[in-house]
Amino acid sequence: MTAKNVYMFKEGNATMRDLLGGKGANLGEMTNMGLPVPQGFIITTEACNQFYQTGEKLSEGLIEEIYSSLNKLEKETGKEFGSVENPLLVSVRSGAAISMPGMMDTILNLGLNDDTVKTLAENTQNERFAYDSYRRFIQMFGDVVLEIDKDKFENLLELMKEENNFTEDTQLTAEHLKELVEQFKEVVRKETGEDFPYDPKEQLLKSVEAVFASWNNPRAITYRRINEVPKSIKGTAVNVQTMVFGNMGDDCGTGVAFTRNPSTGENKLYGEFLMNAQGEDVVAGIRTPQSISHLKEVSPELYKQFKDAAEKLEKHYKDMQDIEFTIEKSKLYILQTRSGKRTATAAIRVASELVEEGIISKEEALMRIEPKQLDQLLHPNFDEEALKNASAIAKGLPASPGAATGKIYFTAEAAVTAVNSGEKAILVRQETSPEDIEGMYLASGILTARGGMTSHAAVVARGMGKCCVAGCESIRVNEEKKEFIVDGKVYKEGDFISLDGGTGLVYSGEIKTVEPTLSGHFGELMEWSDEFRKLRIRTNADTPADAETAVKFGAEGIGLCRTEHMFFDEKRISSVRKMILSNTKEQREKYLNEILPMQKEDFKGIFRAMGGRPVTIRLLDPPLHEFLPVQDKDILSLAKDFDISFDELKEIIESLKEFNPMLGHRGCRIAITYPEIAVMQTKAIIEAAIEVSKEDNIEIKPEIMIPLVGIVEELEYLKDYIVKTADELIEKAGIELDYLVGTMIEVPRATLVADQIAKEAEFFSFGTNDLTQMAFGFSRDDAGKFLNEYHEKNILEKDPFESIDQTGVGKLVELAVDLGRKEKPELKIGVCGEHGGDPASIVFFHNAGLDYVSCSPYRVPIARLSAAQAVILENKAK
Amino acid sequence: MTAKNVYMFKEGNATMRDLLGGKGANLGEMTNMGLPVPQGFIITTEACNQFYQTGEKLSEGLIEEIYSSLNKLEKETGKEFGSVENPLLVSVRSGAAISMPGMMDTILNLGLNDDTVKTLAENTQNERFAYDSYRRFIQMFGDVVLEIDKDKFENLLELMKEENNFTEDTQLTAEHLKELVEQFKEVVRKETGEDFPYDPKEQLLKSVEAVFASWNNPRAITYRRINEVPKSIKGTAVNVQTMVFGNMGDDCGTGVAFTRNPSTGENKLYGEFLMNAQGEDVVAGIRTPQSISHLKEVSPELYKQFKDAAEKLEKHYKDMQDIEFTIEKSKLYILQTRSGKRTATAAIRVASELVEEGIISKEEALMRIEPKQLDQLLHPNFDEEALKNASAIAKGLPASPGAATGKIYFTAEAAVTAVNSGEKAILVRQETSPEDIEGMYLASGILTARGGMTSHAAVVARGMGKCCVAGCESIRVNEEKKEFIVDGKVYKEGDFISLDGGTGLVYSGEIKTVEPTLSGHFGELMEWSDEFRKLRIRTNADTPADAETAVKFGAEGIGLCRTEHMFFDEKRISSVRKMILSNTKEQREKYLNEILPMQKEDFKGIFRAMGGRPVTIRLLDPPLHEFLPVQDKDILSLAKDFDISFDELKEIIESLKEFNPMLGHRGCRIAITYPEIAVMQTKAIIEAAIEVSKEDNIEIKPEIMIPLVGIVEELEYLKDYIVKTADELIEKAGIELDYLVGTMIEVPRATLVADQIAKEAEFFSFGTNDLTQMAFGFSRDDAGKFLNEYHEKNILEKDPFESIDQTGVGKLVELAVDLGRKEKPELKIGVCGEHGGDPASIVFFHNAGLDYVSCSPYRVPIARLSAAQAVILENKAK
Repeated sequence: MTAKNVYMFKEGNATMRDLLGGKGANLGEMTNMGLPVPQGFIITTEACNQFYQTGEKLSEGLIEEIYSSLNKLEKETGKEFGSVENPLLVSVRSGAAISMPGMMDTILNLGLNDDTVKTLAENTQNERFAYDSYRRFIQMFGDVVLEIDKDKFENLLELMKEENNFTEDTQLTAEHLKELVEQFKEVVRKETGEDFPYDPKEQLLKSVEAVFASWNNPRAITYRRINEVPKSIKGTAVNVQTMVFGNMGDDCGTGVAFTRNPSTGENKLYGEFLMNAQGEDVVAGIRTPQSISHLKEVSPELYKQFKDAAEKLEKHYKDMQDIEFTIEKSKLYILQTRSGKRTATAAIRVASELVEEGIISKEEALMRIEPKQLDQLLHPNFDEEALKNASAIAKGLPASPGAATGKIYFTAEAAVTAVNSGEKAILVRQETSPEDIEGMYLASGILTARGGMTSHAAVVARGMGKCCVAGCESIRVNEEKKEFIVDGKVYKEGDFISLDGGTGLVYSGEIKTVEPTLSGHFGELMEWSDEFRKLRIRTNADTPADAETAVKFGAEGIGLCRTEHMFFDEKRISSVRKMILSNTKEQREKYLNEILPMQKEDFKGIFRAMGGRPVTIRLLDPPLHEFLPVQDKDILSLAKDFDISFDELKEIIESLKEFNPMLGHRGCRIAITYPEIAVMQTKAIIEAAIEVSKEDNIEIKPEIMIPLVGIVEELEYLKDYIVKTADELIEKAGIELDYLVGTMIEVPRATLVADQIAKEAEFFSFGTNDLTQMAFGFSRDDAGKFLNEYHEKNILEKDPFESIDQTGVGKLVELAVDLGRKEKPELKIGVCGEHGGDPASIVFFHNAGLDYVSCSPYRVPIARLSAAQAVILENKAK
Repeated sequence: MTAKNVYMFKEGNATMRDLLGGKGANLGEMTNMGLPVPQGFIITTEACNQFYQTGEKLSEGLIEEIYSSLNKLEKETGKEFGSVENPLLVSVRSGAAISMPGMMDTILNLGLNDDTVKTLAENTQNERFAYDSYRRFIQMFGDVVLEIDKDKFENLLELMKEENNFTEDTQLTAEHLKELVEQFKEVVRKETGEDFPYDPKEQLLKSVEAVFASWNNPRAITYRRINEVPKSIKGTAVNVQTMVFGNMGDDCGTGVAFTRNPSTGENKLYGEFLMNAQGEDVVAGIRTPQSISHLKEVSPELYKQFKDAAEKLEKHYKDMQDIEFTIEKSKLYILQTRSGKRTATAAIRVASELVEEGIISKEEALMRIEPKQLDQLLHPNFDEEALKNASAIAKGLPASPGAATGKIYFTAEAAVTAVNSGEKAILVRQETSPEDIEGMYLASGILTARGGMTSHAAVVARGMGKCCVAGCESIRVNEEKKEFIVDGKVYKEGDFISLDGGTGLVYSGEIKTVEPTLSGHFGELMEWSDEFRKLRIRTNADTPADAETAVKFGAEGIGLCRTEHMFFDEKRISSVRKMILSNTKEQREKYLNEILPMQKEDFKGIFRAMGGRPVTIRLLDPPLHEFLPVQDKDILSLAKDFDISFDELKEIIESLKEFNPMLGHRGCRIAITYPEIAVMQTKAIIEAAIEVSKEDNIEIKPEIMIPLVGIVEELEYLKDYIVKTADELIEKAGIELDYLVGTMIEVPRATLVADQIAKEAEFFSFGTNDLTQMAFGFSRDDAGKFLNEYHEKNILEKDPFESIDQTGVGKLVELAVDLGRKEKPELKIGVCGEHGGDPASIVFFHNAGLDYVSCSPYRVPIARLSAAQAVILENKAK
């Protein structure tokens, strides 16, 4: 270790975040800005990294550097470690390159011992405060550095209060606290076999070690996993800063403030302070802090100083700041500044107004918004007050955002009945199936015990913009008994529960929800996004209602219209089932003809809703057995209707079952067996397009998409039928109608022979859900269980169903784009899997050269912003 | 069409096979060798191809060329089409580049009409023969060229026989036949509205058209599909050859002979002939033909001529020939020669002796043997005589070769009981599962109604060298009623059936089987293979018995030892199940410790059987639910044993079920959840290796293989456990033991990040079964149904589970080899999927640069030969 490992504040600046951590870099920056920062030094993240590489010990070299920096600090402050005249007291804090709770946070008042405490008492004229600080220091040091059970100290404190019949800590006198200090030191002696360190230098080195060690404590590891902290961030820095005191009298104080309102974004100082108090008093709530604007009345001068500092910091950092300050003897100290956390509403308003104020550019504004935050704006949320009294009973996957409250129902039918009679329903299922569509549509929210982020429930709910918590494994659903059990407690049909689809939390009881409102700033942000982005944004929509929602959010076309949901409609399912059971082509065609006019009406509705924007319709995809009844009564009724015996029908249904339906008779394979299905669907699409273009006099551009192609001959075979059917109808109608025939690229083999496929296909649309399933060999319905473990064991950083696996699956995408465009340079390429709405994936798709992404209607704004960010990032990298 | 489209025989030679077809090329070659071939000309395959491109019509240019060649032929023979003095009669035959039954075969006596027939009668002094030839010509022409229903002619023939009270055709006189000719001409007139063509030129052109058209008749298409004729072969040639007659008197005759015995390979003329007869008389069996050796007695001179010709042909073609000849007026004519079809035994003996005789090189000999033919030599076959009386009742997939006969049993238990009491059993199942292993092992053969070429039944049966017919969809198995139904007929437990695993045919009743014997020629062939091949050949073996069989066949190591079959052993399954149901690591370890000594003994047996050859052991692969009981009685018994309630256990079993087990919690994912399983297996492997190397004083090289890795971190995580466990045991034992830790490459993603994986893995072994499943998105258990359709509709040429899909899946293999070797040039790479025993795949693996292939024991000889062929083909291509 030869490099410099310790920096004085004035040697640091904001660009040194990786080395000095966020807190340290900002302390350096503020020092150099001339702001009143209590001085100190920073031990680097690199030193932490070295600490782990050399057996978790501080090297001699590092210790020397620390001492030398300490020396400089003593000179600067005129104070001295351990001096009884003018003792130097410091705080020691962790600070990684990104904000990271879970590590050891702060040790205050380091430098106190039996002698310096007396000086502190004299200087503050407050013996009680000095000894309270001392006993707190011993307690904190004992806990986090010496790893002594906290209770050992707390119990003594309680005991002393009991003996004196006190109820509050504040009732303890200086004498009590002196006694307690002795008792605490005894605890340390007993637990560690050594005296509490008297020497401030020893206190310091031990604290540094403890901060470094806390980087790998379980809470910190968990935090990094959950928040997907990149592995490149290694270690935390340690900030050693001179103590200042806000509780040395009425000319002292402490507070926290935001430069703008973090909830609404309003450009006005927002925060609170307390005079003659320590930081923890503000947090503890013993005294009620005052609004920051009140500081003006306490001291106009200090208020102005603080306001100026705040403005300076905001201008400097070009973002809303969250600032901690202390006033010691009428002197203002800035202890810390950082970008303020904010709601989505505030984020958008702040970004937008910073542009208006000429502080940042549009590009910077767009990069300031976390695209996923937009979800908050588009869905109902719980009322914050109501939520405070609610208790979470379980946590599942945050499958589709929004908040919902209602009565539990365990079947789609029951939910439908309840909603129709005016109730709010939450549909609770082991897992949902396509038969549940109507119930899902009417319910306020959906809760499933099984399935992942791309399970049926999750995908459909996101498409509907409906709140959904999926894969909530801790609840045990008994659909027969109409109840679920969680932690031994039984919830029955009709009981109220509430779901937060943004966090995955399930609450018992009813919680008030509030509807979102979209501000003008939001519209502005979207416009700016559109100025920058190159990717077109389409939507996945199966109904005119979804299509309209998506257009409202800015969708430029439909990238995926699934036709199977239409087959489940009550009026059609009987014809669909009979078609499946037919033994001859003629019989099948008869039932398909019953479906044709209905399917045509669906498409007309969607074409109208999209008003001439391109619409990609995928031919029937799921395995046919999904359409057959499961319950005996439905089987019986179908058997009667179709005039075969119950046993015979049951046997047929059994024979259609598959071991691995995901890899079975589905997608284009169905139409290859029964081309008449593709012919019927082509007729419905083309006839609908002809009729709408005539009736509404708009140009309709249907794009017929064949799913699950892995072999070019599959596409050739079906394209023949489709083109023949379509061309005949168009010729007969005597109009011009452009339609395209293309394919999903979702089977790994398709990516490998994409050049062959491009010869036949007029467009590609990546189905990255299936591509991910097959590339990893993960069934999205089953992988939920072990993917959690994969996260915990650091095997996978991200859920590949949420955000595309760029290293593996992404390689297949890039390969297919290359091969496809090599064969056909003008080939239109998009993506219509779930990844089309994920910000990181959208950046990837932009870079891979795709023409568009398609996502569920409620993700369209997210996609617009992400696509703009992709361009800005690309330009930066140039 | 400007190129030359018609060739006189003398313009052709054997190298022109693609253009002139096999038959035509050989006629040209023989003509140029100076052999007595009746002269003629050949219309090319290219002309056939053009015929299809120009609306199935003969072009003017082609017709001119045909006439011009006809003219040359008339000059050469001194005969003339339609001449009443010396009429030219010809035969017209199809002939593609490869032998291809199913097309129109032959039209004889073309050139006959009401006038030339009289000349034929005079020349042959046989009016009956002349008119019989004429009526046959009309009948054949009417059937194949004019497409008139055969019965229309046959019925008239029968009627005439009835009217005269005749029973045999031969009883009809010349007068009868003249009358029949008139009736036949009337049929033609009535059916086609035109007279039977009198003009021989018209007869010829129509016949040529018919031959061309027959290329695409359904029988021919089916033949090409079943025999995987490459699509590059397009069209058939047409051979027009002067007629010679073997039935013009006692100095005439006809016959067919092989230059060596096609059944045994013995180097001795083998065939038969008839004097004063036509070719079809030999075939029809009305007169008994005589052995070819008898020709010596009829005419020593002709015999010598024929023998000389035969020898000349064999030397010229350097292979055993199948020769047709005719003697006309004591003059020998050779009509056709081709490589003789032969049994595997004969193929090997002929190839071996041709090398001894200095006629061909070892390379040529090795290329002569179709590797798959070797299967015939290694498995029992049906007695040929017995088979003649057998009737096939169904056809499934030829999943594992050999012949078997026995009584039907529907459960593994019943089959075991039956075999133990001395019966032969055929296990019939809907599909087999790992629980059936013992029954499969003891049964003579296995028949399943579902599943493809790589279904559980197929894979396990091939491993055992046991006859298996899989996916026989036409039988409906009712395991409860203990019966199956096929075509309405019921077969019950205890009824006899017989299976041919080489053809997929199922027979009712008992059929005698014969055991194979291996000749010295076989051993020689294998030695030669070993001289050439570069690929090492390993075997897939799970038991010492399998390992021994494989070593006997030449296996150089084990490429895949599956450990899961060992878990099903009756003595262990209870511990395995309890381990699965355990809630804590401690509990699991307790039951794993019960399994450890047994598993160690397995490995010791296998190490011993392999005598120091490398052994690759795969850690537990299948999903855990496969080990849990299915039937209520077994669940009840386990529940008691494990001390939980039946309902509770049932619920646990239910909760372990997966939607797509193929993509679920299996492979390395199990060991990642429960590392203690991998630790136990590592202990068993390493302890076994230590003990055997001490006890037998041989060097043991265990290779521990981690299945289903798709992410390098999976491998890292498990390797840590394995290496730690292994190194501790080795250190404790105080001996040297080299072991390797490697991975299967079977998930598509693994091929994409093979460079990352190669950093951690000491070897790769491709699992091309799973790779194929995931690359295509085909579940091997479900795809059987639609893969048939894919063949029929020309979407797939070959079953990708039988022979590797070189275009798609192969690309992934090549990519992984490239990436892996780039990272680690010395990386050992093999394949252990089913493709390791498929000849075409082996050639591919050789070219891809693999180090070894591993296949089931009975395929080891096939693999040795194929690997040699791969080298020879590679050298040729250089």
